[in-house]
Amino acid sequence: MEEIFSVEELENFTRNTFLAIGCSEEDAKLATDVLVKADLRGIDSHGVARLIGYVRLWEAGRINPTPHIKIVHETPSTAVVDGDKGLGLVVAPKAMEIAIQKAKEVGTGWVSVKNSNHFGIAGYHSMMALDQDMVGMAMTNASPLVAPTFATERMLGTNPIAVAIPTNEQPPFVADLATTTAANGKLEILQRKGLEAPYGWIQDKQGNGSKNPHELKEGGALLPLGGDREHGSHKGYALGAIVDIFSAVFSGANYGPWAPPFVSFLPLSDNPVGEGLGHFLGAMRIDAFRPADEFKWHMDNWIKRFRDTEAVEGKQVLIPGDPERETEALRLKAGIPLNSNVIRDLEEVAKKLKIGFKTLQ
Amino acid sequence: MEEIFSVEELENFTRNTFLAIGCSEEDAKLATDVLVKADLRGIDSHGVARLIGYVRLWEAGRINPTPHIKIVHETPSTAVVDGDKGLGLVVAPKAMEIAIQKAKEVGTGWVSVKNSNHFGIAGYHSMMALDQDMVGMAMTNASPLVAPTFATERMLGTNPIAVAIPTNEQPPFVADLATTTAANGKLEILQRKGLEAPYGWIQDKQGNGSKNPHELKEGGALLPLGGDREHGSHKGYALGAIVDIFSAVFSGANYGPWAPPFVSFLPLSDNPVGEGLGHFLGAMRIDAFRPADEFKWHMDNWIKRFRDTEAVEGKQVLIPGDPERETEALRLKAGIPLNSNVIRDLEEVAKKLKIGFKTLQ
Repeated sequence: MEEIFSVEELENFTRNTFLAIGCSEEDAKLATDVLVKADLRGIDSHGVARLIGYVRLWEAGRINPTPHIKIVHETPSTAVVDGDKGLGLVVAPKAMEIAIQKAKEVGTGWVSVKNSNHFGIAGYHSMMALDQDMVGMAMTNASPLVAPTFATERMLGTNPIAVAIPTNEQPPFVADLATTTAANGKLEILQRKGLEAPYGWIQDKQGNGSKNPHELKEGGALLPLGGDREHGSHKGYALGAIVDIFSAVFSGANYGPWAPPFVSFLPLSDNPVGEGLGHFLGAMRIDAFRPADEFKWHMDNWIKRFRDTEAVEGKQVLIPGDPERETEALRLKAGIPLNSNVIRDLEEVAKKLKIGFKTLQ
Repeated sequence: MEEIFSVEELENFTRNTFLAIGCSEEDAKLATDVLVKADLRGIDSHGVARLIGYVRLWEAGRINPTPHIKIVHETPSTAVVDGDKGLGLVVAPKAMEIAIQKAKEVGTGWVSVKNSNHFGIAGYHSMMALDQDMVGMAMTNASPLVAPTFATERMLGTNPIAVAIPTNEQPPFVADLATTTAANGKLEILQRKGLEAPYGWIQDKQGNGSKNPHELKEGGALLPLGGDREHGSHKGYALGAIVDIFSAVFSGANYGPWAPPFVSFLPLSDNPVGEGLGHFLGAMRIDAFRPADEFKWHMDNWIKRFRDTEAVEGKQVLIPGDPERETEALRLKAGIPLNSNVIRDLEEVAKKLKIGFKTLQ
């Protein structure tokens, strides 16, 4: 069961929620923009479906709605930012602004963040660089759900990497990928539909490949991109590890199995190795390498050539970012579908915080 | 049939080869160091097995043994380097030195290279940063052998990403991974042994999954990490694309299907979009983020915790770089095994250039 909501309805409700937990107008607007962007781009698992999770973290005292976000160390091209337990949805874009400012000054800027939490879709932050004629990068570590190759224990998050690259006439190149075979959101879809997962997505608690999309609740784990050793899972594991280290060891956040869980009912580690969750954000001015117009001409050419690749019957080679951009264009007009579980969660948020919600009127 | 060679024998022969084609003493030594490092680390496909390929490229006039390698554009944290058709084995480490120098000055350094060719193992260049207390990164584009998701055409190289991260007591973290399910070298091993490839490594020219390790000679292609769409091949494709763009669109090298082939018998593109092959090299000072000792203490802790991960019966969770480091320790003592095809190629090089070789004495 799905119901369609207008973008404005969801934005208003989300902003009112962040205001109700004590965020400033400015922060509530920013967090709303990041969160609803996920729904617009079709990454439903990272949009308003997570709103109740943020509220519960706030209730548990794990989110500070009025953080003092500050640079604790810097060089001309780098900074470490302390997010002061603020919403990742607010901390990450502010850290990205710092990366962009540094890129303006010395060509590139790289910011590692500690003491933050879930930052929404990595793609949002990377895309902030685009209208500055910069390449944007965003990574984050996350709740441990992924077993490295040969492991039976969950050691890494789905640790995404996003890279946004500006263009001229073509739409921008925007890759935003979890370093796992499949993101957790895809398992949730299978669970709702009562379908099995393909082999290579998950394993059971003994480390055997499994098709059961509920396996994570029974001690199983998501698998790194590649799925198994023979298909290169050690590469997906290495990529997830790099994201973990850049996000958390650079900054002084918790890494690996110490990364704090998103769900508030799981306890925090008794012996943390850092503060909160970590992110890594980067910006590179394209004219720090070659004239911007020249770069963008070649990016247009790259994209056109790849779109024209000879393809298997009935298929087309896509450019990273194509599906999300098409979904966004569609949903901006037609609205955003939410399933009944998400609507129930939003109703719970509305009652808890005493704010209006369409379905309760 | 294999024969064991001492490291010194292979180094002498390789250096004499590069001297014979006109390299300076310094460049011949550097190129030898990079090439033989691949054999030492067990990445046999990228070691002296490729020496004849470099010689043939030189014969075809595609390699300049006395390049004037220069910075053509720079900012405090970036540079574009023109390799002047030099050996990638020489151009890449010199570009990495520039990245390291910039990191010393402003925290990080990022160098995109054009007009180069095959640079050996990416891991070598990334590891140059380690004893500077820096994180090193190296990427390169390469001859088009890989079909993007849904494609029947080869558009990208195996486009590797290497990341080296310094430690204190533990050996360093060194990830060096092709963005394909399996590197071409693994297919060559299967070909020699007459074995089939697992599904997910290659496709035939119609885009169907194939087990035939000779498929590339018949119009087939390697597959991006993930193997197929259901297992995330669009992520491997996106990663390979990012490497291509950072290496070649940033610098002004040839990208995508225009990337020049390694083998000299294939023609260069009639309408190149840039100059030669491209690389991307990066260095980040760890103390640009937090005190170096603190960073390295946490890296040791990261590595110990991951090594202790609960694993499936009879297996252990490895740290990226473990297998290569163990092979290197072994081969430094026991020597380097070469198969008869490689020995035959080295004999051909020896005759062609009139230099001594063990088996010909």
